[in-house]
Amino acid sequence: MPVYTCTLAQGTLSNEAKSDLAREITTIHSAVNHVPGNYVNVVFNELPPTDVFSGGQPGQPLIINGWVRTGHPDEETSQLVREIADAATQVTGVPVEKVLVVIQNSPAHHAIEAGRVLPEPGQEHTWLAAGG
Amino acid sequence: MPVYTCTLAQGTLSNEAKSDLAREITTIHSAVNHVPGNYVNVVFNELPPTDVFSGGQPGQPLIINGWVRTGHPDEETSQLVREIADAATQVTGVPVEKVLVVIQNSPAHHAIEAGRVLPEPGQEHTWLAAGG
Amino acid sequence: MPVYTCTLAQGTLSNEAKSDLAREITTIHSAVNHVPGNYVNVVFNELPPTDVFSGGQPGQPLIINGWVRTGHPDEETSQLVREIADAATQVTGVPVEKVLVVIQNSPAHHAIEAGRVLPEPGQEHTWLAAGG
Repeated sequence: MPVYTCTLAQGTLSNEAKSDLAREITTIHSAVNHVPGNYVNVVFNELPPTDVFSGGQPGQPLIINGWVRTGHPDEETSQLVREIADAATQVTGVPVEKVLVVIQNSPAHHAIEAGRVLPEPGQEHTWLAAGG
Repeated sequence: MPVYTCTLAQGTLSNEAKSDLAREITTIHSAVNHVPGNYVNVVFNELPPTDVFSGGQPGQPLIINGWVRTGHPDEETSQLVREIADAATQVTGVPVEKVLVVIQNSPAHHAIEAGRVLPEPGQEHTWLAAGG
Repeated sequence: MPVYTCTLAQGTLSNEAKSDLAREITTIHSAVNHVPGNYVNVVFNELPPTDVFSGGQPGQPLIINGWVRTGHPDEETSQLVREIADAATQVTGVPVEKVLVVIQNSPAHHAIEAGRVLPEPGQEHTWLAAGG
């Protein structure tokens, strides 16, 4: 259901670090937002260093943008963003100053996966069972 | 006006399949959201297979993220996401389980195209005529 | 804090034009939204010409998608999008008809940078001082 897009300059992370970060984000999202891990997507959008700017100069931020369904309790989203930011710093070795995590959302019924409209937060169980 | 970003691993779709999908999305959006087809943008963000994860493992999802103006009737957005998800499955041959379609929105007056603030949904006619 | 993602076909802009545009967006955002320039991120997502469609045909749009914190006064966001659209046309030489600027937002407390939850609009001063 969720999609996390990590944007960064090429060479910032090794393949191992990317794989580790994808697993961490998956584990955290699954635990906090009650979604089975296999529904969590994480992609890395690596750009040439000449195409990434911070402050108008070439930069090396690690930008993690997550899309989730609208309606999760606010404290869960706060926990989610906190845990992902902490994990990104620990797993990747990117300095904390350069890590930015942003969560965006839109209504569950504006999204379809596996041919079915996504469940509202809290209705995951019923949705998953019906998909059997 | 709208922008559809299709994120996928390299090799998932042929150039022909991408072109077909772009045309289908354009046709559907134009019909459902009352926008001339030439205002519909579709881009494909193909990433190395090592950079796309589902469930913390290398995966092959087809993620279609659309941006539209806030204010379309809810049933139109539901129809839009349904028709695009169906078309994506039919046109590309990607298994339905791997297709995720998400629509996001922001206010029309937070967007500018061709030098003019976008029209509210329902005001497309006037906007287009004034652009003549 | 903000992230601007410029999506375009390869070859649309020279490295110099990209650098100029990144600086312009940074200067504008900093002035309008009261954020120090070094917190403004601009990335260019250049795609093969075969992967960019307008109206279902290969196209050459310049799509600038900005993420900002929810809560900026509406007239500031209108000014922001206007100034960025104007700058993009002037700096890049891309025809005005092909330039699309969209601003999206989510709550400041759904984002973390440098290990700290982002400030609400208007609270930047306190946040920056506390980070010292």
